[in-house]
Formats: sequence, C-alpha cells, structure tokens
Amino acid sequence: MTNIMVEEILAQVRAALERDDYAAAAAALEPLRAPDQADLFNELADHHQSALLPRLDPEDSADILEELEDEEAARLLTSLSPDEAVRIIDEMEPDEAADLIGELEPERQEFVLANLEDQAEVRPLLLHQADTAGGLMTSEFLALGRRMTIADALAAMRTWKPDAEDIHEVYAIDRHGRLAGMIGMRQLLMKEPTVTLGEIIDPDAVFVSVAADQEEAARLMSRYDLASLPVIDAKGVLVGVITIDDVIDVIEEETTEDFQRFGGGEPLDRPYLESGILTVVRKRIGWLLLLFITETLTGSVLRHFEAEMASVVSLAFFIPLLIGTGGNAGSQTTSTIIRALAVEDLDRRGFLRPLLHELSVGAVLGGLMGIVAYGRALLWGTGTAVALTVAVAIAAIVIWANVLGSVLPILAHRLKIDPTVVSGPAMSTLVDATGLFIYFTVAGLILAL
Amino acid sequence: MTNIMVEEILAQVRAALERDDYAAAAAALEPLRAPDQADLFNELADHHQSALLPRLDPEDSADILEELEDEEAARLLTSLSPDEAVRIIDEMEPDEAADLIGELEPERQEFVLANLEDQAEVRPLLLHQADTAGGLMTSEFLALGRRMTIADALAAMRTWKPDAEDIHEVYAIDRHGRLAGMIGMRQLLMKEPTVTLGEIIDPDAVFVSVAADQEEAARLMSRYDLASLPVIDAKGVLVGVITIDDVIDVIEEETTEDFQRFGGGEPLDRPYLESGILTVVRKRIGWLLLLFITETLTGSVLRHFEAEMASVVSLAFFIPLLIGTGGNAGSQTTSTIIRALAVEDLDRRGFLRPLLHELSVGAVLGGLMGIVAYGRALLWGTGTAVALTVAVAIAAIVIWANVLGSVLPILAHRLKIDPTVVSGPAMSTLVDATGLFIYFTVAGLILAL
Repeated sequence: MTNIMVEEILAQVRAALERDDYAAAAAALEPLRAPDQADLFNELADHHQSALLPRLDPEDSADILEELEDEEAARLLTSLSPDEAVRIIDEMEPDEAADLIGELEPERQEFVLANLEDQAEVRPLLLHQADTAGGLMTSEFLALGRRMTIADALAAMRTWKPDAEDIHEVYAIDRHGRLAGMIGMRQLLMKEPTVTLGEIIDPDAVFVSVAADQEEAARLMSRYDLASLPVIDAKGVLVGVITIDDVIDVIEEETTEDFQRFGGGEPLDRPYLESGILTVVRKRIGWLLLLFITETLTGSVLRHFEAEMASVVSLAFFIPLLIGTGGNAGSQTTSTIIRALAVEDLDRRGFLRPLLHELSVGAVLGGLMGIVAYGRALLWGTGTAVALTVAVAIAAIVIWANVLGSVLPILAHRLKIDPTVVSGPAMSTLVDATGLFIYFTVAGLILAL
Repeated sequence: MTNIMVEEILAQVRAALERDDYAAAAAALEPLRAPDQADLFNELADHHQSALLPRLDPEDSADILEELEDEEAARLLTSLSPDEAVRIIDEMEPDEAADLIGELEPERQEFVLANLEDQAEVRPLLLHQADTAGGLMTSEFLALGRRMTIADALAAMRTWKPDAEDIHEVYAIDRHGRLAGMIGMRQLLMKEPTVTLGEIIDPDAVFVSVAADQEEAARLMSRYDLASLPVIDAKGVLVGVITIDDVIDVIEEETTEDFQRFGGGEPLDRPYLESGILTVVRKRIGWLLLLFITETLTGSVLRHFEAEMASVVSLAFFIPLLIGTGGNAGSQTTSTIIRALAVEDLDRRGFLRPLLHELSVGAVLGGLMGIVAYGRALLWGTGTAVALTVAVAIAAIVIWANVLGSVLPILAHRLKIDPTVVSGPAMSTLVDATGLFIYFTVAGLILAL
C-alpha cells in the first residue's frame, strides 16, 4: 500500500460518506486488507465510523475492530445497537473478542455475552489477566484425541470452522484433555491415513502455563521457533493456543515500553498521539522529579568545593563537558548491557565478566578522551596543571561511568527489577553528581588546592 | 529448561568428554532441543566442540550450527574434515547454510559447494546481501502449478522432504514461475480433492521484492500477521520464502541495534560478550568524540557569560541541575517519538501534531519543575531573584528540550536517516549547550546583569 493509494481511497470513502452513500463507502474499503482498512477507518470522523461499521460485512468489521486499540473499539461498539455489536463480535477471534468485551460497561458486557454464539469460547478467556499467557491465548484450537487416526484428524479439520486464518500445528490430548503431544501439518500429511496420532506425535511439545507472563510465552516461541504454543492449566489440560502474530505484537509492545523506560519515562499504555497531554505528563513527571532531586546533589558537591572553584575559576568551564561525557559513556554502556540481558547474552554469567569487559573498554575510552581533553584545554588557553586535571578527571569519570553502567542494570536484573530502570537519564544524573566529586578531588590533588 | 537441568547436563557432557567418551557426551546432549544444545555447546572448550560435533547425528549438528553465530560456526567447521563439514551443512536449512558458507574461506567454500547435495538450493542464495529479503529467504519452498488439483498438491507435499520443519502456506505459480497466489493449509484441506489450486488461491497475496530491506519484510509480516512471506524477483518469479522465525530474529536484531544507537553508540555486530574490547571501543569512540566536541560549546557559553557568573556566584551551583533536567526531558521526548515512528504511529502525519503535543506536555512539565526548582532554590538559601531565575530558566529549558526531542527525530526520519541518531546522549549534549544559553539570558533579564 503506497501512501498515494491510501489517500485516494480515503478521499473516495469520505466523498461517499458526505453524500450518505454508505454502500459506496463500504465498497471502496472492501478490497483492502484488514490493517489497511483499520488505518483508513481511524482517519474518519467518529459519527462516520459508527454509521459505516454496521454496514460493512461483519467479518470485515470484526477484522477492523481487532486492529483498533481496545478502548477505541469499545467506544465505537457502544455507539452501535446491542444486536449489531453482537453480530460483529461473533466474527472476531475469541481472544480479541474477550479483550474487547473486557472494555465494555458491565450491562453491555452481560448482553453481549448472553447473546454471543461463541460464548462458550469467549467466557473462559475473560478470567485471565491481559498480560499473562492466558490473556494472550485463543480458545479456538483443535484438540484431537490421541487415538484418532490421521484420516479422522483430517476429517475433523475439514468440518472445523474457526474465525482465525490457519492451522500451524496439531495438538493431541489424552482422555482427560491433557496435552499429549503435537505434530506439524506436513508430518501429518506424510503418514498413512490409518496411523493414529498417538503413534506419530512429538510427546515433548514446548508448552506454557496459563498463568505465566506473556513475555515468557514470547521468549519460548522465539527461542524454539514456534508458530503456535499450547497453553495448559495446573492439571496439564490444554486450555488454549497462542499464535505467533499475537506474540509479535507482544514483542513490539515490550520493545516500546523498554524504549520509553530507557528514555527516562514510564511507558504509555496507548499509542503516542492517542495519549492525552496530562497522561504523558503523568508518565514523565515522576522520573523527572526523582532525577531532579538526585541532581541537586550536584549543587551540594559544588558548594562543598566552592573554595576550590573560586580559587581556580577556569575549573568551572569544564564542568558540563566532563559530566556530560561521563553521562554519555554511561548511557552507551547501560544500553548495551540492558539489551544483552534482554536477549539473554549475559544469562547464567556473573557480574564479573561484563564488569571486566567494561572496565577495559572504559580504560581505553577514558585514556583516549583524556588525551583529547588535554589538547582541547590547552587550546582554550588553560594552564597545563588545569589541563592535566581535566584529562585525568575525564579518564576517571569515563571509567567510573562504565562501571556503573555495567553493574547497575545487572544488579537490577538480579533483584527482579526491570533493568531499564537504569535509564540513560538515570545514568547521566548519577554520573553528574559523582563525576563532579571525582573532578574536584582530582583538582585538589593535582592543583594542591 | 531450568538452569539446574542445564548445569546438570553440562556436567555430564563435560565428564564424558574428559574421559574421551564422545558417545556418552552425545547421548547426554541428544534429548535436548536445538537451542538448548547450542547453549550447552557454547560452554564447552573449543577442542571439545570440534571433537564432539562430527559424532552427533548430522541433523543435530546442523541444528546447533544454525543456532550459533555464523563466525563461530565457520570457525568450528574449519576444524572438521571437509567431508564432515559437507555432511553437516547438507542437513541445514538452505538460508542458514548459505549464510554459513559465506563465512568460510574461498577454498573451503568451493569444496563445500561442489560436494553439497543441496547445492542447487544454496548457490542462488549466496548472491543476495545479508540484510535484504533475498538474504533472509529460504529457497526450500513448495511452488505448485496453479493447474494442479488439491489431490496433486497433497501428493507433492507428501513426497517433498525439506530440511525445515513445517509448511504454513502453499504458493501457486503460473507456467513462467511467477507467483499466482497463495492458500492456507486449512482452506486447502477443506475443499474437494478435484478442485484446482487456481480456483481457490487468493491471487492478492502479500509479497516482497528480493532486493527489499529485511526490515520491510519484517514490517509486512508483522502488519499482515503472516507466518510466511513469498519473495519475488523483478519479473515476478517466486524465488524464495521468508519464514516467521527468521523475521523474529530480525526484529530482535533491529531492536538491539536501535537500543545501542539510542544509548549513544554504533551497534555491535555480534553478541556483547563476544565483541572484543577494541571493537566495543571503536563502536563508541566516534559518538563520544563528536558529542565531546559539541559539548565544548558549553565552555564557550560559560566563558561568554563569565562576568555574569562572577557577579552572582550562586548561579553556577544550578548549572548541572538545569541542564541535567533539560537533558532528561529531552531524552524522555525523543525516546517516545522514535518508538512512535518505528511502530508507524506518526506515519503520514506532519511535524505539527507531535510538536504541539510536546509543546503542551513541555509547558505543563516545565511549569511544574519551575515551581519545584523555585522552592528548592529558596531552601538552599538563595535570594528570590536567583530562585525566580532558576524557575523560569528550568521551565524554558524543559519546553525547549521537548521541542528539540520531537522535531529532530522526525526531521531525521524525513531525511531518511535513522531517527535513533537523535540518541539520549545527543539530546543531553544539545540541551546542555543551548540550555546554558537560555539560563544566562534569563538571568540577564531578571537580575539585570
């Protein structure tokens, strides 16, 4: 989809809506794929959205609702008649339907659930928290008895009419509904039709517990290259299946959260432009204040060294340069370590190896920056003693920043705290206060203040 | 896999290797899944790795090599006899095999290619750059003629013996080999065996061009929830298929690169602990120097306002606090905007909406921080005039940081530069120099210096 095509179709849809021709608007949308339909839909005025949605094919409407944010979709549904809402929700995948129903007001919720054809599939999904494997799974999966033959299994697949698109793997269960194993579609087709599933399934299927964190599900699917992942309850009963497309959304969401946290704010719960100004402020002000308070330590350090500053005024000129460089080195280190933790490069290893690694890197970087800083200070017409102070201080600060940047995220990880808490801004702030202390201590020693 | 199990099996394998009992070592590894085997394998000494690999089932060895970094795998292969190497590579998926062969030295490369059973599949893959769709695709896919019946198609699948695990979708081609459409396995099974593929395929399949960036492939698969994506050449001929597991690796890789770049360094090409100290230094020193040079502007600004600083010494105490807070606000903003660009929340929208959004957020945050800073300055015993200066300056700096943090990444994106170039450190550095200028200008106005 090029932007030009999108603009063209959007113009067609808008023109049709202006003259209240919903059939034409629906016809213009129809040939697009669901994510593109949803994008266009988002550009329309609210009253046009409410008027258009029930006029689309319910399957298309369902696809569009699946693509929208849950709150947005719930708002839209509330503007429809209860029957129209039910007709659309019935075409949604059960996991998406459950998420959406969870956003409706209680009365509407009850009506929808009572009238839904798929209610047996949707109701159990309402019990799980959104960020668990249970909240991510769909209850629409094919569980085949292990005693079924391949011919039976294929026949069952033919009569099964799920709302989702495709089957990636086939799961076999025992008579208690417990997961017995899995087999890929290709292996299934390759065997004789009279063979039973029990004879050919891989009994050692990767699975996840219904209460596990959604990140654990994503980790397993990514690690073992799975297109779908069975979810079991405490008794081992197969209760759902997580598909790879939902996991990609989770990975994307988690990345966004990590990024925002590493940038020094709490993650937004919704897309950026849909987050109100006060919401964004609320997510940022906490860290800004906390870092501000920590940063006031710099004032205390500066007051403590007031005499030194007064006697050698030129020392002050280098303050932002020194602590800025230290913060940059710290941010470089912590971003690398945080990612190494996220992709499990540092798993099962102690503090020691990354610490030694960063000590060495810091020593080289610090040495190089020291030489550059020495030259720069001389160019500014500073005396050699002050230049030497600046050079030694910057080397020490860079090494110190690399140590902090490697140890703190690993420490947080050990304490089961998200390592992105050691954000770039947190590193700069810590290095600012401690870096000043290092600077003036070095100055005291070299300049004999 | 719990860590305890890993440690136990690792101990078994090591003990077996110590007494040169390769059969026992192989037997201990055998029940594990490939990624777990590869993890354990990585912990072994180099000579043990070389000795053990040819004694494993070639399929297992192939899986382990697929999991290792390409350079590591190539190093390992070089220690085997050429015939052993060929036997293992023949069991690898063609795309993984091609990546690995690309890492071998030319002589070994020629020998392997000449003796490979799968050479017809592997050779064409060597032509594509690693970070393109062509570099990511496998040539091992089933292209079925559009005139084939479903019964023929199923028969073809039964006789096909790929090295990869499973079929997600079926692609149909015309007589020139051009992509004609696709159909999911479930839809295929649901139709009568006598129906031809041409009658039931979706002719509007999402595809990617062989020369497209791998990120474009990832974007398409994520957006359209695809488990596999066909790759076509300039003539529309189906030349390969990208599977979702490879795309998840790409997403993970790109996230790591974005994180490292946003932290203020160039991305490492290899896992953190496997990157040598000088490599890490090389990836970081460039930005550190560039930011250092930019940061020297702060020295110039301070010199320019030397008279003001000398007349009101207490102004100096607030310098790190003010520019630190500005840098933090800027980093919060740029991280949010960069992610919003990455997930296409800001696509097809101008500068204006995010700029207005951040102006408003900045005004609220700046106002709040101004009040807090005013109180804090008074508590430090500063006079009201200086406290007012600090309050107004911090508000102005926060607003300015939010403007920079929103405009710069969008500008970079427009100029086709990766927006992570506006990293947290880059933001702090820019805000440091310009923030000082704002501070002393405000001081000049309020304190009439």
